[in-house]
Amino acid sequence: MLDHRLQTLQTWLKNEDVAYAFIQGKANLFYLTGFRCEPHERLVSLFVFQNEEPILICPNMEKELVRQTGWKYHIIGYSDHENPWELISHYLASLKIEGSTIAIEKSLLSVARAEQLRELSKGAGFICCETKLMNLRLIKNDEEIAILREAAKLADYGVEVGVHALSTGRTEMDVLAMIEYELKKKGIAEMSFGTLVLSGEQSANPHGKPSMKHLQEGEFVLFDLGVVLEGYCSDITRTVAFGQITEEQQNIYNTVLHAQTETLKLCQVGTTLGDLDRKARSIITEAGYGSYFPHRIGHGLGTEVHELPSLNETNNDQLQVGMTFTIEPGIYVPKTGGVRIEDDVLITADGYECLTQYPKDLQVIK
Amino acid sequence: MLDHRLQTLQTWLKNEDVAYAFIQGKANLFYLTGFRCEPHERLVSLFVFQNEEPILICPNMEKELVRQTGWKYHIIGYSDHENPWELISHYLASLKIEGSTIAIEKSLLSVARAEQLRELSKGAGFICCETKLMNLRLIKNDEEIAILREAAKLADYGVEVGVHALSTGRTEMDVLAMIEYELKKKGIAEMSFGTLVLSGEQSANPHGKPSMKHLQEGEFVLFDLGVVLEGYCSDITRTVAFGQITEEQQNIYNTVLHAQTETLKLCQVGTTLGDLDRKARSIITEAGYGSYFPHRIGHGLGTEVHELPSLNETNNDQLQVGMTFTIEPGIYVPKTGGVRIEDDVLITADGYECLTQYPKDLQVIK
Repeated sequence: MLDHRLQTLQTWLKNEDVAYAFIQGKANLFYLTGFRCEPHERLVSLFVFQNEEPILICPNMEKELVRQTGWKYHIIGYSDHENPWELISHYLASLKIEGSTIAIEKSLLSVARAEQLRELSKGAGFICCETKLMNLRLIKNDEEIAILREAAKLADYGVEVGVHALSTGRTEMDVLAMIEYELKKKGIAEMSFGTLVLSGEQSANPHGKPSMKHLQEGEFVLFDLGVVLEGYCSDITRTVAFGQITEEQQNIYNTVLHAQTETLKLCQVGTTLGDLDRKARSIITEAGYGSYFPHRIGHGLGTEVHELPSLNETNNDQLQVGMTFTIEPGIYVPKTGGVRIEDDVLITADGYECLTQYPKDLQVIK
Repeated sequence: MLDHRLQTLQTWLKNEDVAYAFIQGKANLFYLTGFRCEPHERLVSLFVFQNEEPILICPNMEKELVRQTGWKYHIIGYSDHENPWELISHYLASLKIEGSTIAIEKSLLSVARAEQLRELSKGAGFICCETKLMNLRLIKNDEEIAILREAAKLADYGVEVGVHALSTGRTEMDVLAMIEYELKKKGIAEMSFGTLVLSGEQSANPHGKPSMKHLQEGEFVLFDLGVVLEGYCSDITRTVAFGQITEEQQNIYNTVLHAQTETLKLCQVGTTLGDLDRKARSIITEAGYGSYFPHRIGHGLGTEVHELPSLNETNNDQLQVGMTFTIEPGIYVPKTGGVRIEDDVLITADGYECLTQYPKDLQVIK
C-alpha cells in the first residue's frame, strides 16, 4: 500500500519534471511512510525522487520507531548537535537525481525550511504537491475505511461515557476527564483535537473551551470529540438536554436535527459539496436561525481531522465513493445555548454509510 | 504587560524600518495578545505596525473569545466563505503605514502565507522577527514565573498520581489515563505534550509511545508529562523501579541522578548553557554510558514546551536571571531500560529555583 502511494507520487514527479518532493507535514508523512510523530522543532521529513529510492531523515532517537513501522528504505539519522541539512546535502550528492524543480507542501512548509531547500538545490524553483497528496488521500480504501469505522465507534463510546457522566455538581472538566479516561484505558493515546464538553451559555460558542463551570438544570450539554486510531481521526458532536429545557431550546434542537438528517439524505455520488451546505443552511434559515449558523456544514476526515473535501457552499465538486467527511450543522444562540449534531459519513456506491452511530433524538438527562 | 510587549516590538519595527510584523505562531500570538487558540487551517494572526494600532484577524466565531481575553484593538472577523486576505488588504489601505519590509516568523510561517503577504505588500522584502520575539520571551517576569511555578506543581502532582497508580495488571495506558483524569478534573484542558508512561524496554526509547503493555516486576517506569496553565507549560520526568531491580539498573539510575544534581549545581548567572550539557555528559560518559545519552541536556520552557534557550554543548550563551528551562539527562540501554530525570529550573539572582519538586531518590514500588 505504502509502495503504491510512493509510486503514484513518483509518477507525478516524472510527469511534472520534479527532482524531488520534500514532505514533512505530519499527515502526509504518515500517509507515505506509516510513521507518525510529533517532531517539535526537529526536522523529520521524506525525500521522494523520480527513480532513486526515497529517504527519510529524522533524529537518531526516532530511527528505531521508524524501523518498527516497516520503513524499508534509507534513513538519515542525526543527533542534536549535527546539522541535518549538511547530512542531506552529502547524501543527495551521491544520487543520480533527474528533474528541475522541488515539490513542497506550500501551506505546511516554513519559509525557513524553504530557504534551506533553496540552498540545497540552488536554482531550483518550487511547485506545490499538496493538491496531489490531498487528492490521493481524498478517496479512502477498504483498509482505511475499516480503521475510520473503528475510530468512529470509539467516538460514539466517548459520547456514551460523557452522557452517563452528567450529574449535578460535576463540572464540564469532570465530564471531559471521565470521557478521556475511559478512551485512554482502551489504548487511545491521542484525541483528534481537544475534547469539548460545553454547557449552557458555553455551548453557544462553537469553539468555546471546557471549564470548571458546574452543570445546571435546563442547559444544553454539547460534546465534540474524536480519537486518533492507527493514524486516522474520528469526530462526533452530540448535544443533550440536562434536565427539562424550554420550548425554544427544543425547537433549536429539532431544527438542527432536521437539517442534519435532511442533509444526510443528499449524501450520494454526484451531489455537490455545496448542495450539502446549502441544504442545511436553508432549513436553518427557514426556521429563523440562519445568522446563528456561522460555519460550513462539514469537512473531510482521514489522517487529519480537517482535510479535503471542504463542505462549504461555494464548493461545486461532486461526492465520490470513498470520500469521508463530517456533516455538522449547528445553531448557537447567545445566552440560550448552542446545539450541534455531527456525524462521520462515508460515501458508498449505494449512497452513504454513517460511521458514527450514537443516537440523535433529543435526550433529556434527569 | 501586553501593551509593553507590543511597544517593545513597535520600537524594533521602527529601528529596522519594518512596515509591519505578521505574527501567527501560537505561542507568539498568545504572548502578544493574550489569546491562545488552535486555528487548524484557518488564519488567526496579528499585524503590528510602527505607529498604527495593531489588528488581529480571526474567524468570526473566535471574535468573542478574543474579546474575553481583553484584546482592546481592532479585530477583523471573517466567515468560512470569505477570503480573509481581501478583508486585510482593504483594511490596510485605510492605514498610514511606514517602513519598507515585512517581519515574519520564518520557522513558523508557511510558504503559502508568505506568498499571500507578498501579494498584499508587493515589492516588500521579508525579515525574521523570531529572534526578537524569542529573546523577549526568554526572560520571564514575576507574573510568568508565578504561573510556571503553579504549572510545575501540577506536573509534580501528575507524577504523584502516576506513581500511586502503579500496580500489577495495569497497562501503561491505564496509568496514563489516571494521571490525565486527575489533572483534567483540576481544570487542566491541555497537556504540554502527549503524556509518556513507558515501562521496561519501552523506557529505553527516549521518544517511545505509551502502549497497552502491562507493567512487569523489575522494570523501570518512566513518566514524562506537563500541563499548560494559563498559556505556560511545565515538563517533568521521573523514573521509578516497579519491584526489585538489578544492580546494573540501580547503577544507571544513580548515574542519571548524579548527573542531574551535579548539573543543577552549575545553574547560576554566568554559567554557559554548553557547560550544563558538558557537565552531565561527562558524568554519564565516565560511568560508561556516554553513547546511551543521545539528546541535549535540556530546553527552554515558557509559552512553548520547547523554546529558547537550547541547552546543547555548542551553545555558549550565558545563563541570565529569569530564564526557565529543563535539566533532563537520560541513559537508555536497549533491553535493560531507560532512566530520565527532568526538572524545570528558574535562574535567580542567588542561583536557581527548582520549579518541579517531586522527590528524585530511587523509589522501589512494591
